[in-house]
Amino acid sequence: MNDADLGFARKILAEQPFSNLVGARLIAFGGGEATLELDIRQDLLQQNGYLHGGILSYAADNALTFAAGTVAGASVLTTGFTIDYLRPATGTLLRSHGWVVRSGRSRVVCRCDLFAVDEEGAETLCAVAQGTISVLPPSNGS
Amino acid sequence: MNDADLGFARKILAEQPFSNLVGARLIAFGGGEATLELDIRQDLLQQNGYLHGGILSYAADNALTFAAGTVAGASVLTTGFTIDYLRPATGTLLRSHGWVVRSGRSRVVCRCDLFAVDEEGAETLCAVAQGTISVLPPSNGS
Amino acid sequence: MNDADLGFARKILAEQPFSNLVGARLIAFGGGEATLELDIRQDLLQQNGYLHGGILSYAADNALTFAAGTVAGASVLTTGFTIDYLRPATGTLLRSHGWVVRSGRSRVVCRCDLFAVDEEGAETLCAVAQGTISVLPPSNGS
Amino acid sequence: MNDADLGFARKILAEQPFSNLVGARLIAFGGGEATLELDIRQDLLQQNGYLHGGILSYAADNALTFAAGTVAGASVLTTGFTIDYLRPATGTLLRSHGWVVRSGRSRVVCRCDLFAVDEEGAETLCAVAQGTISVLPPSNGS
Repeated sequence: MNDADLGFARKILAEQPFSNLVGARLIAFGGGEATLELDIRQDLLQQNGYLHGGILSYAADNALTFAAGTVAGASVLTTGFTIDYLRPATGTLLRSHGWVVRSGRSRVVCRCDLFAVDEEGAETLCAVAQGTISVLPPSNGS
Repeated sequence: MNDADLGFARKILAEQPFSNLVGARLIAFGGGEATLELDIRQDLLQQNGYLHGGILSYAADNALTFAAGTVAGASVLTTGFTIDYLRPATGTLLRSHGWVVRSGRSRVVCRCDLFAVDEEGAETLCAVAQGTISVLPPSNGS
Repeated sequence: MNDADLGFARKILAEQPFSNLVGARLIAFGGGEATLELDIRQDLLQQNGYLHGGILSYAADNALTFAAGTVAGASVLTTGFTIDYLRPATGTLLRSHGWVVRSGRSRVVCRCDLFAVDEEGAETLCAVAQGTISVLPPSNGS
Repeated sequence: MNDADLGFARKILAEQPFSNLVGARLIAFGGGEATLELDIRQDLLQQNGYLHGGILSYAADNALTFAAGTVAGASVLTTGFTIDYLRPATGTLLRSHGWVVRSGRSRVVCRCDLFAVDEEGAETLCAVAQGTISVLPPSNGS
């Protein structure tokens, strides 16, 4: 991982109002991998006290996209993904780790593991995802 | 649609802190269909001014689950889904319409269309989803 | 549907050795939709006497691709899809109906319904799919 | 891997007429993993000389199911999966390797990597999949 790259990626994340709303932080970015974390706050839960599935899917979407960004740059667009929930997510924080499976010229395919982390730092795998990110062609002109 | 059912479903949605955070409203619930709406607010966007993909995936997840709930009751759990993004979502509100494709004893499969709606009420399809919802077995005893 | 188009699409299907092996026929092709059929033969089953899931996924893959071909021409490539199985498929034939949900410049998103059809012609929905088809850019030069 | 288990799993594969038709072989089975292989024969291709996507999806479906079978026994049923194609598959044989990500009481989630293998035995990753397998409850009585 290159510190300059991590700094640039964090700047993009900071420009996403929704990522700010849910408190997402970029922990690692580089070499085909990206890790996103967010605190499991009360206002991110569903009715049974678990992290809402929609937050897990947000964290999958964004980690997939940033992982692709490590190889394809900032002009990427997630075109779709699949998520399977494995266990209710509880604990201190959610860690979403995405990595590149195949990087093509116009399309990057990534996978993502989502962990609930408790106070002692123990990880529990709570969801897995797989998705496709489009690499936008360079715009003509300027 | 039965008004009592819609009221009950809205009560469950109101018990989801994350749904409150993003301002989701249940517009329709019954007969194998559920419609969720939320305002396209500034704090739900990504860095280019479009609705964040994570909000679309939240709205897909929840509309799929509520659609399943119309046939299977409150003891349901979304086990996974796929979403394909079609167009950037902009406008006034996001409308997520889920419906049941097949309702089995232990599993309900649903589809979902997500529309961006502009000030005049015109809908633009911006994402499609498909997912599986597990029906929890009745607990033994109490 | 245009008869010339259907004829052209059938020619492509006939050039797929695997489609010949499983006996696939193109029944309709045009206007954003394609329908594929194949007889539920003994050699396409799994161990319990139902049509093998792999045949259903083949029929989904191909109907999604041909549906995209109705709007995007022959230079298309399925990049991925999701299938959910709903019921065991038995009966006389499998009918796989794909249709375009969104046709973009470089990417077409389609859905597909798969029906088992009995001797009287009654359809039973046995699987649903959703997938993405890439439109290949015109090659430069020759 | 236990030889008895591999033998039992091969017996089930041999009872699938469609697996016989395409020439699938079970190479490994046990400890949460299963590997399936098949020769890249002429009659399994599509119109451009590559292995048909439908064969890749068959091999994903079956490797996912057998991987789940290593932890959940023979009473399993694939309920759905997602496949992303990465590269055209050519060469000598297709190797489909599935493994368990999470084994629950009623549901097993697996991933799968599909490799095209050339004459020298070199593997090229050509597709990735993720799917859910239901564990059937023991039948009552008879």
